[in-house]
Amino acid sequence: MGLKVYGAAMSTCTARVLTALIEKEAEYELVPVNLAVGEHKQPAYLAKHPFGQIPVLEDDDLTLFESRAIAAYVSYKYKTQGTDLLRIGNLKEAGLVGVWIEVESQQFNPAISALVYQLVIAPAFGRPVDQAIIDTNTEKLGKVLDVYEARLSSNKYLAGDFFSLADLNHLPYTYYLMKTGSASLINERPHVKAWWEDISSRPAFVKVSENMNLGG
Amino acid sequence: MGLKVYGAAMSTCTARVLTALIEKEAEYELVPVNLAVGEHKQPAYLAKHPFGQIPVLEDDDLTLFESRAIAAYVSYKYKTQGTDLLRIGNLKEAGLVGVWIEVESQQFNPAISALVYQLVIAPAFGRPVDQAIIDTNTEKLGKVLDVYEARLSSNKYLAGDFFSLADLNHLPYTYYLMKTGSASLINERPHVKAWWEDISSRPAFVKVSENMNLGG
Repeated sequence: MGLKVYGAAMSTCTARVLTALIEKEAEYELVPVNLAVGEHKQPAYLAKHPFGQIPVLEDDDLTLFESRAIAAYVSYKYKTQGTDLLRIGNLKEAGLVGVWIEVESQQFNPAISALVYQLVIAPAFGRPVDQAIIDTNTEKLGKVLDVYEARLSSNKYLAGDFFSLADLNHLPYTYYLMKTGSASLINERPHVKAWWEDISSRPAFVKVSENMNLGG
Repeated sequence: MGLKVYGAAMSTCTARVLTALIEKEAEYELVPVNLAVGEHKQPAYLAKHPFGQIPVLEDDDLTLFESRAIAAYVSYKYKTQGTDLLRIGNLKEAGLVGVWIEVESQQFNPAISALVYQLVIAPAFGRPVDQAIIDTNTEKLGKVLDVYEARLSSNKYLAGDFFSLADLNHLPYTYYLMKTGSASLINERPHVKAWWEDISSRPAFVKVSENMNLGG
């Protein structure tokens, strides 16, 4: 039985998982979850994902959630095919991939996810926008990107001179940020801008982003 | 050359790394970082950790930061000794360990770290306390722990019937929460309470927590 991803193609966290699957040349089926009618809060879905979020991966009798955990699982399971996203054959490189995966999770994501919510998601669904949250997180994300600018001036990618899951995990939220006026946060930093243009033009993400149509 | 941990023994994120090192029976030296004089914001330290936080792990010429990344690195590097924290010999178990590591990181930590800051850290350093933040995060953490209660009623530990890094990562913040009136969040949920009593009485964490003296 093949892999099943329960999610929504426009969603950032679903897009993260789909990009990893395509980079790993893994076959999968996307099973749409209808968020508009609250399908993710119904008992059948909560049995797969107790927090009622998307996505979920089903691999035979194994059910996984949390997009970063799924992306790492897929990268490990298919370690002999597709892009080497974890560098598990090299302890030092794998350690650095792990560091920058956590930097995305703990430093980058809290700021950019708040910004993308305010700038893209809230307007798309007619919800109120909070300028104070935009201001606070613009400042926070700028400081994180200052560290990235320094890092990327001496390394082509975050963990070293190789594309990895650490880079990949940044794609979906940055893609939506780039549709807004806050794209300047990326464009004003030349090494971050070059990195973004490189990683976002990889065929796997080009394919996934075709369906990421929030914010027009 | 042995492993060097730059950090502070009372700090939650340093404690996470030290607990993993002891579970893995790895030798290490703790090099204290003097936060009170801002040593973590000085150029020498920023060269190790560009975000100026603790802890950092030095392993020969490799420098790693982000406590969860360090704990995973140590668990992988010493996979043949000490407690099997990642279950990397079993793809399914390793996948579930990965899921619950991410649940700690994305669901549990944002709520409990905000609570512990308000209830323990701010009072200890004479900083203002914000009751609205306490209320919001008490509600958030309660909802997360409702999921844990259900999970732990059918599994002894989060990822299955084995202690793993997913459980370990919860120890430091929960330890400080248990010193406050909000310990009731744990104690009111019988399976969560039994899990907490089990994981916090493991010798590695008993040793580490002897130096966790914030909040008296």
